[in-house]
Amino acid sequence: MSIILGVDPGFHITGYGILKKEASKISLIDYGCLTMSSTKSLSERTSIFYDFFEQKIQGNVITNVALETPFLGKNAQNFLKLGYLRGILYLLAYQNSCTLHEFAPRQVKQTVTGYGGASKDQVSRVVQQLFASAIKASTFDVTDALAVTLCGVWQQKSREA
Amino acid sequence: MSIILGVDPGFHITGYGILKKEASKISLIDYGCLTMSSTKSLSERTSIFYDFFEQKIQGNVITNVALETPFLGKNAQNFLKLGYLRGILYLLAYQNSCTLHEFAPRQVKQTVTGYGGASKDQVSRVVQQLFASAIKASTFDVTDALAVTLCGVWQQKSREA
Repeated sequence: MSIILGVDPGFHITGYGILKKEASKISLIDYGCLTMSSTKSLSERTSIFYDFFEQKIQGNVITNVALETPFLGKNAQNFLKLGYLRGILYLLAYQNSCTLHEFAPRQVKQTVTGYGGASKDQVSRVVQQLFASAIKASTFDVTDALAVTLCGVWQQKSREA
Repeated sequence: MSIILGVDPGFHITGYGILKKEASKISLIDYGCLTMSSTKSLSERTSIFYDFFEQKIQGNVITNVALETPFLGKNAQNFLKLGYLRGILYLLAYQNSCTLHEFAPRQVKQTVTGYGGASKDQVSRVVQQLFASAIKASTFDVTDALAVTLCGVWQQKSREA
C-alpha cells in the first residue's frame, strides 16, 4: 500500500492531493488548497507551509511525495522563492522517510491526458472524471496537484510491476 | 545585545559566521563550513542543513540571520536549488524568532570594503584584517559568509542609532 501526497506549491495558493493505492485500487483521501495571506512575511509563510504539510504527512502516514519540476518563467526572484517551498517539501520528505518523485510538466500532462501539450483545462477534465463528483468544484490549483499525485501513483505501479 | 548568524548556502559547501554585538563591541563567536557529500540525495542534504543550523541557532541563541540575495546565473536549476536551502533558513529564522536580513551582493561589498564592485579577494582581506589571526586560513566560503554577517551587524547598528 502507498499513500501519495502531490503538491503544487505557491506562496499565495498551494494545491495538494492525497491518493491511496492498494493493489489495483486507487482512492482519493484528501485534496484542497493552503492559502497564505501576502500580508504575512515570507519567513512566516514558510513556517505555516511546513506545519501544514507536516500534519498532512504524519496524519495520513504518507509514503511518497510527488512534485512537478518548475521551469524558469519571466521572474527569476519568484522562481527562486518557489524553491523555498520546494526545499521545505524535500526536508519534510526526508524527515518522514517518504520517497520523493519529480515529474516534468510535459510528463504530468502526458501521463494524465495522453498528450504532453495538454492545457490545464484538459488535465482538469481528466482528473475530475477520474474522481467523479468528489472534486467537481475544484480549481486548477487542486486539479494540477492531483495530476502530479496521479503521476506518483502510476510511477509506483510501473516500478512495482 | 545581538547575535548574528550569516550564511552563504550551497549544496556542496556552506560558509557561515556568527558575530556578537554588545554595545560597540563586536566579537567573533564561531565560523566555518558545512560540507555535504554529493553522493547524498538533495532531500537528505536539506535535512542535514536544517539540523546543522537549528543547532547553531539554538546553541548560540541567535537573534538575527543575514543572507545575501543571489542573482540568476547560467544554470536556472541550480538557482532553484539554492532556493531550497534559503527556504530552510527562512523557516529556521521564523521557528526560532530571529529577524531575517537580506542584502544584495553589491551592498555587502560596499559595506565591507567601501566599494560595491570589490572582488572576493578584497572582501576576504578586509574580513581577515578585522578578525586578525582567528580566521587566517579561511576560504572565500567563510569570508563571504562573515561579510554578510558584518552587514547584519552594521545594519543592526544603524537601526538602533
